[in-house]
Amino acid sequence: MPRRSAWRVGRSKLILGVGVVIAVMALIAAACSGDDGGGESSALGGSAADIAQARGLTEADISAALKTYVPSGQQDEYLIFSSGGHAGQVFVIGVPSMRLLKTIGVFTPEPWQGWGYGDQDTMEILEQGRVDGNDVLWADTHHPALSETDGDYDGEFVFINDKANARVAVIDLRDFETKQILKNPIAINDHGGTFVTPNTEWVIEGGQYATPNGWEYAPISEYESEYKGMVTFWKFDRSAGRIDADSSFAMELPPYWQDLCDAGKLVSEGWVFCNSFNTELATGSGDVGSGGEAFEAGASARDNDYMHVINLDKAVGVAASKGVDINGMTVIPLQASIDEGLLYFVPEPKSPHGVDITPGGEYMVISGKLDPHVTVYSFDKIQDAIAAQNWQPDQYGVPVLDFDSVLEAQVELGLGPLHTQFDGDGYAYTSLFLNSSVARWSLGPPYGDEWKLEGEIPVHYNIGHLVAAEGDTVDPDGRYLVALNKWSIDRFFPPGPLLPQNFQLIDITEAPEAAPDTAGMQLLYDMPIGVGEPHYAQMIKADKVLDHVWEVYPEIGWDPSTMSVDPNAPMAGNERVVRNGDTVEIWMTLVRSHYTPDRIEVKAGDRVIWHLTNIDTSKDATHGFSVPGYNINVSLEPGETATVEFDATMDGVFPFYCSEFCSALHLEMAGYFLVAPE
Amino acid sequence: MPRRSAWRVGRSKLILGVGVVIAVMALIAAACSGDDGGGESSALGGSAADIAQARGLTEADISAALKTYVPSGQQDEYLIFSSGGHAGQVFVIGVPSMRLLKTIGVFTPEPWQGWGYGDQDTMEILEQGRVDGNDVLWADTHHPALSETDGDYDGEFVFINDKANARVAVIDLRDFETKQILKNPIAINDHGGTFVTPNTEWVIEGGQYATPNGWEYAPISEYESEYKGMVTFWKFDRSAGRIDADSSFAMELPPYWQDLCDAGKLVSEGWVFCNSFNTELATGSGDVGSGGEAFEAGASARDNDYMHVINLDKAVGVAASKGVDINGMTVIPLQASIDEGLLYFVPEPKSPHGVDITPGGEYMVISGKLDPHVTVYSFDKIQDAIAAQNWQPDQYGVPVLDFDSVLEAQVELGLGPLHTQFDGDGYAYTSLFLNSSVARWSLGPPYGDEWKLEGEIPVHYNIGHLVAAEGDTVDPDGRYLVALNKWSIDRFFPPGPLLPQNFQLIDITEAPEAAPDTAGMQLLYDMPIGVGEPHYAQMIKADKVLDHVWEVYPEIGWDPSTMSVDPNAPMAGNERVVRNGDTVEIWMTLVRSHYTPDRIEVKAGDRVIWHLTNIDTSKDATHGFSVPGYNINVSLEPGETATVEFDATMDGVFPFYCSEFCSALHLEMAGYFLVAPE
Repeated sequence: MPRRSAWRVGRSKLILGVGVVIAVMALIAAACSGDDGGGESSALGGSAADIAQARGLTEADISAALKTYVPSGQQDEYLIFSSGGHAGQVFVIGVPSMRLLKTIGVFTPEPWQGWGYGDQDTMEILEQGRVDGNDVLWADTHHPALSETDGDYDGEFVFINDKANARVAVIDLRDFETKQILKNPIAINDHGGTFVTPNTEWVIEGGQYATPNGWEYAPISEYESEYKGMVTFWKFDRSAGRIDADSSFAMELPPYWQDLCDAGKLVSEGWVFCNSFNTELATGSGDVGSGGEAFEAGASARDNDYMHVINLDKAVGVAASKGVDINGMTVIPLQASIDEGLLYFVPEPKSPHGVDITPGGEYMVISGKLDPHVTVYSFDKIQDAIAAQNWQPDQYGVPVLDFDSVLEAQVELGLGPLHTQFDGDGYAYTSLFLNSSVARWSLGPPYGDEWKLEGEIPVHYNIGHLVAAEGDTVDPDGRYLVALNKWSIDRFFPPGPLLPQNFQLIDITEAPEAAPDTAGMQLLYDMPIGVGEPHYAQMIKADKVLDHVWEVYPEIGWDPSTMSVDPNAPMAGNERVVRNGDTVEIWMTLVRSHYTPDRIEVKAGDRVIWHLTNIDTSKDATHGFSVPGYNINVSLEPGETATVEFDATMDGVFPFYCSEFCSALHLEMAGYFLVAPE
Repeated sequence: MPRRSAWRVGRSKLILGVGVVIAVMALIAAACSGDDGGGESSALGGSAADIAQARGLTEADISAALKTYVPSGQQDEYLIFSSGGHAGQVFVIGVPSMRLLKTIGVFTPEPWQGWGYGDQDTMEILEQGRVDGNDVLWADTHHPALSETDGDYDGEFVFINDKANARVAVIDLRDFETKQILKNPIAINDHGGTFVTPNTEWVIEGGQYATPNGWEYAPISEYESEYKGMVTFWKFDRSAGRIDADSSFAMELPPYWQDLCDAGKLVSEGWVFCNSFNTELATGSGDVGSGGEAFEAGASARDNDYMHVINLDKAVGVAASKGVDINGMTVIPLQASIDEGLLYFVPEPKSPHGVDITPGGEYMVISGKLDPHVTVYSFDKIQDAIAAQNWQPDQYGVPVLDFDSVLEAQVELGLGPLHTQFDGDGYAYTSLFLNSSVARWSLGPPYGDEWKLEGEIPVHYNIGHLVAAEGDTVDPDGRYLVALNKWSIDRFFPPGPLLPQNFQLIDITEAPEAAPDTAGMQLLYDMPIGVGEPHYAQMIKADKVLDHVWEVYPEIGWDPSTMSVDPNAPMAGNERVVRNGDTVEIWMTLVRSHYTPDRIEVKAGDRVIWHLTNIDTSKDATHGFSVPGYNINVSLEPGETATVEFDATMDGVFPFYCSEFCSALHLEMAGYFLVAPE
């Protein structure tokens, strides 16, 4: 076997060819001293420069490596909360390392965290998301929104929508768990959510593809009259940590396809802005061979669509006085919105995507994906036009403000502008889908002197949204920007035909003049997202979340669904099994490395109610509870209690065990669940 | 608003303080020239050294950053295939960047990749995993096994087990999709799988917690006689890309809890080795207050457990002649295995975990987690002891070989040894759970001179398994090792009480003498795993997989379940809708940026059979098919065809749309599915 002797030779070689790793600073010293690497200083063979050379790293690569590397035991400076797209979850990513810290189970069951696999509280939250009584156990999450105080992220909650089924979820950042899911009672799908008002009084959910109200049927021939657009304002009760559905309301809108929304802030606080497309009222090509026009053409025929300008503050009162009940939701009819002055339209270049409000709230920035400009509207001018009644009604009677009278600026950026974020230095950043680039441009007064394109940096490829650090708040941080690229051909090892998305981290600390080719922007990192198709993200200073987060639950017996101690939680010393007719109720504790009790006997057909408490209180001392055959897996973080209920339909012997590797005797943390035949 | 003027000041400052990024080499030149950075060379403000200093990077950090950074557009050199633990999936990770390239949906439905959300082929594969007819839609995946040719990874397939429910899955690395799930017919849970024989003829699945055969019930008082251990040998048909259940067989074993297994290779090819624990036959503490002993104590009472030594080659014949049918599986009764010389035991330090075969197949390395040594057995000596009948029977009559006669060496490593991997230079690497470290030790002849501990490197924290590049093949690569750490306290931003695992990348290219403190090993990177709890992984040279992988399907109309063109696939020009009684069958194509047809009308109660083909053939041109309310989301990669079947139980209007951001007019890629009331 020549291979084996080869090993020995290889090993000897290694011993002779020792390389000691030294740093850049040491390398400089050696280089300057004229030490040419003879003798012991062959140690330079392991130097930073040699590593860079051996790996073919360019100057830019070295800079990027050093800017993104986060050493063992150090924490990232920012957190990205990203939608998971049709994975149905929320991803938490550290910046600048671009490491995925967690996938938070939201709409899709996820067994690692015990989300929807027997833990009754999680099952009930997922059941809240049923559509007309049917389980819908996935979602197309699009737009996460961090809770805000005074227009700035406060690190307490995250909201997320489900485009596919018009649902909204609430995540508590104390334990990073989903607490609530709401199905929109009037719409079957959405898009323009979630966005929050500056103090998180309202969570905004705008519609998308128009349908009849209340998930009803109407033939598509009645599209113009029976199909409706909508925007929903969910009332958030911060002290309860829940949306209060009873205090929420919606506005009926024309059957244009509403797209992204944003809340006004500072000078424009109290107002909400949403884009729309398909003001053409296209309904598709119809039957095969009928010669009808597909949506991509039919919904792009007109030059303009309408930005929706909504007086939210006023709408709250009108909802109370003129709202009608549809499927349990208070809805302001369109005519009431017109009559009461709640809704105005502003022409915008056709088929726009993002409507993004400048940090001071003065301007609405529209990116029309079929127009190379961003179009900037002035809130003051909009108010003036409303006051002057400078409008014409659209076909539904909604006042359409005069375009020229409300326009502040148009800046030509390039092809396919979609979404804009801001930094703290007066720059805006707009994703250009068709250019595959990020444009950096200057805001006019009061931010800077002139509305002006500074330049762009290529991204790889087909950027959808982008996110800058706190880039949609009243106080953007700048520093980092991430391009959420939809395609990643040739960027990574291809794991089959379904390629990951590509989050590209860009350094935006330098001024445009620092690197004119890229307007000062430096590409730092490519992060493959092979776990979902994120659409939108927000980036928050990590410290703000660290102020709130819990590493262990505050007390033993903690129920994450109520955020309090469950008085019925099993505790050390009161473990027991009680039979009551055909119901067997178990109070069990978990601690490194055993269950008490560790043997449960029932009869086939029994109802089993199994209460569990992890009485370990050390950080990271999570235990699992897995029952074969019964589709049960619960994750119990330190102190947590949970209850599993099921019918023992299968007889047999089912060894339950801890599915989390918790200790050296983890494999021995097991028990027998015996189901005797009837 | 003073904030706004602050922006302008900030911006001017930036323009004056321009920093241009230069590389290490340029920095050296400047430093040596004595240029002190005046005037234009304030450009040094952006240098690599300044970045390192500003970010507090040490020499080791800089080296690690440069060794792990993979520039945009370059590919990682190795791929890790990692179990997803109780996430139920397989993770694919690039090395050295430690980026998660993909989560492959296996046992758990995953909507991003359309796994189990309406695509009939995926639904049927998940149904193969039912336990006694019940859906089990999660798993505790433990041990992925890459397919091998001549004992080396060939990059064609990955197998993975489900500990919780005793299931095995087959993943094809042409498209990185799961093709088959098998429920073990005799056992309800497993652990010692999957492992493959050197040419992947057999996929090994060892048992864990003993239960009655065939998922039957027996009272635990009959544990000794009615509960059974097992090992199953699944026959893999490489040309079909499937396990052939009919040609597979199992061996009944004593009700010890079998643990990890490994296949012999080269000199030991044809033999299989499995660990066990709980040879004490502990059955737990029983009822609350009964004073019984928990498993952690009861299963750890004896000093020794038994390595199982199995003559697989011979067992194949015995299965055919003496196998009995249990639940459809051919099972060799224990007495037949004893009579035919298929099974021997070797005493091993109590409660071991890994049994790892050296690259040449000569030695079996046992890590006994409650013993500070690795214990090394000689295959030749085992053969000699068998030939000499140097044994005593255990309580079930299985020959227990004399310990001293088969022992090659014991090396004291430290506390909690679990799992060993190898490099190509004669070193072995063993995870030490209680030490929280990786021990590096030298193999004796023919690899090196002496069985000897070289030293250890701390890891953070509580390492379970580890993986070295191709470290369990006949030809290990060395270079990289990853510690699969179970705890990560203080390593990352804590995303709530459920902390991520921590994969730590370690450079093992240097000889021990290069860095005596860590036996030459350098910690390079901490990767948080916040998507599951991986147990075990294999690392393969990426090129080997690249040889097989497809970035688009070979032809339009490709069915991934048959890996051939579906003659019934919708194709451009033959799109149609056909009603047949209460069944509506649709043939639809998808292409940027529309569906044909884009409007489907049915009646409530109709059966809907919806065939879809993505006729785009560009790389990455994936389209989605999402239907609100009906829990349907399909991912169609370029060329792929799929069929969705469901009953139109809900009436209403359901806008279906492409859930993958595929083009500038992606939002317009939609249609209306109308369900008229009955």
